[in-house]
Amino acid sequence: MDVRAAVALEAGKPLSIETVQLDGPKEGEVLVEIKATGVCHTDAYTLSGADPEGLFPAILGHEGAGVVVEVGAGVQSLKTGDHVIPLYTPECRNCEYCLSQKTNLCQAIRSTQGRGVMPDGSSRFAIDGQPLYHYMGTSTFANYTVLPEIAVAKIREDAPFEKVCYIGCGVTTGIGAVINTAKVEYGANVVVFGLGGIGLNVIQGARMVGANMIVGVDLNPKKKALAEKLGMTHFVNPREVEGDLVAHLVELTKGGADYSFECIGNVNVMRQALECCHKGWGVSVIIGVAGAGQEISTRPFQLVTGRVWKGSAFGGARGRTDVPKIVDWYMEGRINIDDLITNVMPIERINEAFDLMHSGEGIRTVVTF
Amino acid sequence: MDVRAAVALEAGKPLSIETVQLDGPKEGEVLVEIKATGVCHTDAYTLSGADPEGLFPAILGHEGAGVVVEVGAGVQSLKTGDHVIPLYTPECRNCEYCLSQKTNLCQAIRSTQGRGVMPDGSSRFAIDGQPLYHYMGTSTFANYTVLPEIAVAKIREDAPFEKVCYIGCGVTTGIGAVINTAKVEYGANVVVFGLGGIGLNVIQGARMVGANMIVGVDLNPKKKALAEKLGMTHFVNPREVEGDLVAHLVELTKGGADYSFECIGNVNVMRQALECCHKGWGVSVIIGVAGAGQEISTRPFQLVTGRVWKGSAFGGARGRTDVPKIVDWYMEGRINIDDLITNVMPIERINEAFDLMHSGEGIRTVVTF
Repeated sequence: MDVRAAVALEAGKPLSIETVQLDGPKEGEVLVEIKATGVCHTDAYTLSGADPEGLFPAILGHEGAGVVVEVGAGVQSLKTGDHVIPLYTPECRNCEYCLSQKTNLCQAIRSTQGRGVMPDGSSRFAIDGQPLYHYMGTSTFANYTVLPEIAVAKIREDAPFEKVCYIGCGVTTGIGAVINTAKVEYGANVVVFGLGGIGLNVIQGARMVGANMIVGVDLNPKKKALAEKLGMTHFVNPREVEGDLVAHLVELTKGGADYSFECIGNVNVMRQALECCHKGWGVSVIIGVAGAGQEISTRPFQLVTGRVWKGSAFGGARGRTDVPKIVDWYMEGRINIDDLITNVMPIERINEAFDLMHSGEGIRTVVTF
Repeated sequence: MDVRAAVALEAGKPLSIETVQLDGPKEGEVLVEIKATGVCHTDAYTLSGADPEGLFPAILGHEGAGVVVEVGAGVQSLKTGDHVIPLYTPECRNCEYCLSQKTNLCQAIRSTQGRGVMPDGSSRFAIDGQPLYHYMGTSTFANYTVLPEIAVAKIREDAPFEKVCYIGCGVTTGIGAVINTAKVEYGANVVVFGLGGIGLNVIQGARMVGANMIVGVDLNPKKKALAEKLGMTHFVNPREVEGDLVAHLVELTKGGADYSFECIGNVNVMRQALECCHKGWGVSVIIGVAGAGQEISTRPFQLVTGRVWKGSAFGGARGRTDVPKIVDWYMEGRINIDDLITNVMPIERINEAFDLMHSGEGIRTVVTF
C-alpha cells in the first residue's frame, strides 16, 4: 500500500514528505494507522548524523499513537480497531530480560531493531522499489507503519491520540525514571537537570510520589513557570549561582539530593548530578543520551561514600504493561500532558517541528496525519 | 599511663616501637586493652604518605580486638571486662545517617576522627609530652587505646582475639559488601577482582548467600587454591586471557556478572568491573580505595542500559549491631577466618607484617601484644 511519510533520505538534511510503499503485516506483526506522533530529540540526534548507529534512508519517529488496521497471522493480543501506542522498547514477556523482573530492556528483537529491519530481517517500507530502514522499531513518521505485536501497547479508546502519543516516549521516560528506576519515596529531595520534555516529566513524577523539595536546574529561565506548574519547588539557574553549582545544590537540599536526574545528555552535567547527591544514600539517574564516545567520570570516593550511579531507558517501563496505566493516569487527570504539548501541526510541517525543538521554544511538538 | 605502641613518626618510614603516654577515658569514652590487631593495606597507604589526609606522628591500626579496662563517665553500653572490637565506622544510632536506615556511615564524630583527635578535639596519646594523632578513631597499634563508646562493638567472650580482630575490617568489609551493599541473592553470578584480604571475604560472602558462579580475577595464580577453598568456582588470570578481559568475563558468565566487586583500588579495574556486568541489571560495587585524585570513567551507555555503579565502606555494616553477629558466624563455623590469617607475630615485628603484605605472600598478618 502507498503511505505518506516524512523520510530521512540522508543525515543532516531536512525530512522529505514522500509517498512510500508499505508491505502488510507478516506473522506476529500488525499494521497500525498512525494518528499523531511527537518529535523528540532522539529523532533529531539520528537525523543530524551524530548517531553512529543511524541508518539512512529511513523513516524516523518513535512517539506515536494510532489504530490497528490489520493483524498478521498468529497475533493474539491485538485486533483490528484497537487503539495503540508503538513501543521502541518491546515487551515479549518471554526472553531472559523480561523474565528477570529486573529490567525493561526486552531483547527479543534487539538485533534486528538495531539494524533497522523487522524481526524477519527485512524492511516493510520501500521507496521507488528501494528499501527504507525502520527506526527504533517504530517509524511513526508515516501514516501507516508495521510493528511486531510485542512492540505495541493497547490503550483505552477514549484517549486523544495527539496527547497520548507523548506517552510513547517522553512522559513514560520521565515519570518512569522516578517511579520505576529511582523509586523515589514520599518526602525525598529531588534535583532535576534540564527542564525539557523529559525533565518536566521527571518533575511531575516527583510530585506524583510526594517528593518534598523538587529542584529544577536549567540555563533557560523561561522554563521556570511551566516547571513550577508541574511541581518544581525551587529553580536554580547555574548562570546565577556564585561559585560551585554542586556545593550550591548540596546546601540548598541540606546535605544533597536523595535523587537526582540528568535529562540533558551532557557528561559534565552527569557528574554534577552524581556529586550533588547526598552522602550515604543519594541516587543519581542518567536519562539523557550523551554524544557518541563521550565518557562520564568521577572520583570513586563519591561511590564508596554511598552515592549510587545508574541509568534509565524508557523510564524502566514495561511498555505493554505500564503504558496503558499511564494513559489511564492522564485520562483521570493525574498527569499533565496538555501543557507540555506546545504545538500541533500537520506532518507536512514536520521540519518546522524540528526547528521549534532546536530553538528551545515550547516543549513538545506533535504532528498529525 | 604508659603504653607500648608502634608509632608512625613520619610518612614513608618504618613504624617505631615506643613507650607512649595515654590519658584515661573521658566522658563517653572507654579504655581498651588491645590484644591483637591486623595489619591492613589502609594502614600501609597512610604510612606511605600517599594518603592526602594522613597525619603524623600518629598511632595507626584499625583492625583490633581487646578488653574494656575502664569506662568513662556516662558510658552505658559497655563495662569493664567486656570483650570488644574497635570500630573505625561508629554507630551512634542518633545522627541523621544512622536514623536514615539507608547507610552505615555514621557521621557523629566524623570531623574529629578525620582530624586525628577524639570527639572533644584533643588527643589521648602523647610521646615525650608531644601529642600523637589518633588514626581512623581506633589506633590499634598500641596495647591500650581510648575509644568513644559509639565506636566499640561488644562481642562474645569465647572468641579468640587474634582471629576476630580481622572482623574489625577485612572480613566485615568483604562479606558485608555482598550481604548489605550488593544484597547478592541465591543463584547469582559474581565476579571478584583482586583476591587479597578483602576479595577473599567477598568470595566467602558470595558462597554464604548461595551464589552460583563465583569468578575470581587476579594476576597471581598462587591465590587460586585458597580462593577455591573459600568458594571460588572459576579463576581468571588476566595475563592468560587472549583479547579483552571484559568480553571474556561476559562470555564466561553467559551475559555478564549479576554482581561484581573491585577489591584492589585500581580505577582501570573498576571500569572493567562495571563493564563486565550483565546488561539490564548488573551491579558493580567498588570496595578498593584508589589513589588520591584518581578518577573512574565509563560511557554513560553502560548505566543507561541497566548497570549500576555503587560503592561500599566497611561492608555497609553497622558496627555495633552487625560485628557481634559476624563474630557469632565465625564461632559457629559459618565463616572461615583461620585460613586467612597466615601469620601471627608480636608487635615488635610489625614492620615485618607490612613487608609480608607488600610482598603478596600470605593474606593477613595479625600482631599480638
